[in-house]
Amino acid sequence: MREAYHDQLGQLADQLADMCGMAGDAMERATASLLGADLALAEQVIGDDAKIDDVRAGIEEQAYALLALQAPVATDLRIVLAVIHAAESVERMGDLALHVAKAARRRHPNPVLPDTVRPYFAEMGRIAVELAREATDIIRTQDVQRARSLEDADDAMDDLHRHLFTVIMDKDWQHGVPSAVDTTLLGRFYERFADHAVSVAKRTVFVVTGRMPGYHGDPGA
Amino acid sequence: MREAYHDQLGQLADQLADMCGMAGDAMERATASLLGADLALAEQVIGDDAKIDDVRAGIEEQAYALLALQAPVATDLRIVLAVIHAAESVERMGDLALHVAKAARRRHPNPVLPDTVRPYFAEMGRIAVELAREATDIIRTQDVQRARSLEDADDAMDDLHRHLFTVIMDKDWQHGVPSAVDTTLLGRFYERFADHAVSVAKRTVFVVTGRMPGYHGDPGA
Repeated sequence: MREAYHDQLGQLADQLADMCGMAGDAMERATASLLGADLALAEQVIGDDAKIDDVRAGIEEQAYALLALQAPVATDLRIVLAVIHAAESVERMGDLALHVAKAARRRHPNPVLPDTVRPYFAEMGRIAVELAREATDIIRTQDVQRARSLEDADDAMDDLHRHLFTVIMDKDWQHGVPSAVDTTLLGRFYERFADHAVSVAKRTVFVVTGRMPGYHGDPGA
Repeated sequence: MREAYHDQLGQLADQLADMCGMAGDAMERATASLLGADLALAEQVIGDDAKIDDVRAGIEEQAYALLALQAPVATDLRIVLAVIHAAESVERMGDLALHVAKAARRRHPNPVLPDTVRPYFAEMGRIAVELAREATDIIRTQDVQRARSLEDADDAMDDLHRHLFTVIMDKDWQHGVPSAVDTTLLGRFYERFADHAVSVAKRTVFVVTGRMPGYHGDPGA
């Protein structure tokens, strides 16, 4: 019985990891569609978003069933709740990738971004996808050290986001207001995506550190 | 035992309602600080945000204790989980009010908004606060009809938000790029605040409709 129950907990974490991987793929494609004005890729992201939502609904139902049937306590309870929270954040990551893809579709065949800010988005996209992939691995491996080092990637995202604003706000901005508005919102989508990826990884890993094999540090740190 | 347990569920809902009221107050003050370039009010919102976060932490702890000690099933389980989710959304509403207040502080003593868009924000602020107050009452009363009518207020917010964009994007926009960027982000904060208020009300009410006195409709509708 205990065995089956821990198998179910493990399956839940696996599905969460899969879902996080899907959100990372979505952001990778969305970024490519944004930078390449690639309509087919944008449509793919838009069409695929429902799949992420479906996985989330499935995770939530299974988590509820686990709570109702097994009534877990202590760490097990916190794991299930962390998975429920994390699944909500990952769905939001998918939504943010969707917003990026929709921006690419809305302006197609024109590029959304002026050339000046393209390198920022190439890099923000790279970091966002890296964070989602890291979060995916961390959910699977429960590697606390990697969860901590996510902060650095997130700091890099925040720096890029701040620099991007100084570029948009600069008096030499030549690309007009509509471009500035698009760039502002897109910048925020990437920054929020990164925040969610970090919170997913941290929330799912710190809650279990007390019982993870090979971990002897301070779970409260 | 059953009595005490349902008292605890009720207290949890009360605290969620209080918290939602606090988020509404925060947005009311943040909007006043934005429109009146009122630094003291902005500082108050910024200082008070930690109180909302504290209530959220308290709700989450009590909800976890309830799950661990009472192991609720069926509707009771869904109520507790809905409260946990809703508390997360209300904390986010508080954060969005905080972002508005910080924008007011950042540009002080200058107004953040050009005169052209002030009426939009006066109205978006009014609707945001109304939605938070409605959500607060709906959590307390479990009034399904009022939960449904929230959609209309949210549609009004979405309309304003769309119109606001046409104003910013218009070639006659005279207020420069930095103003357009501030206005864009602020518009998004209000729109997200409204989305969260609606989801809080809907999530907390629909989950309990099956067992609410005086309600005989279709809980799945």
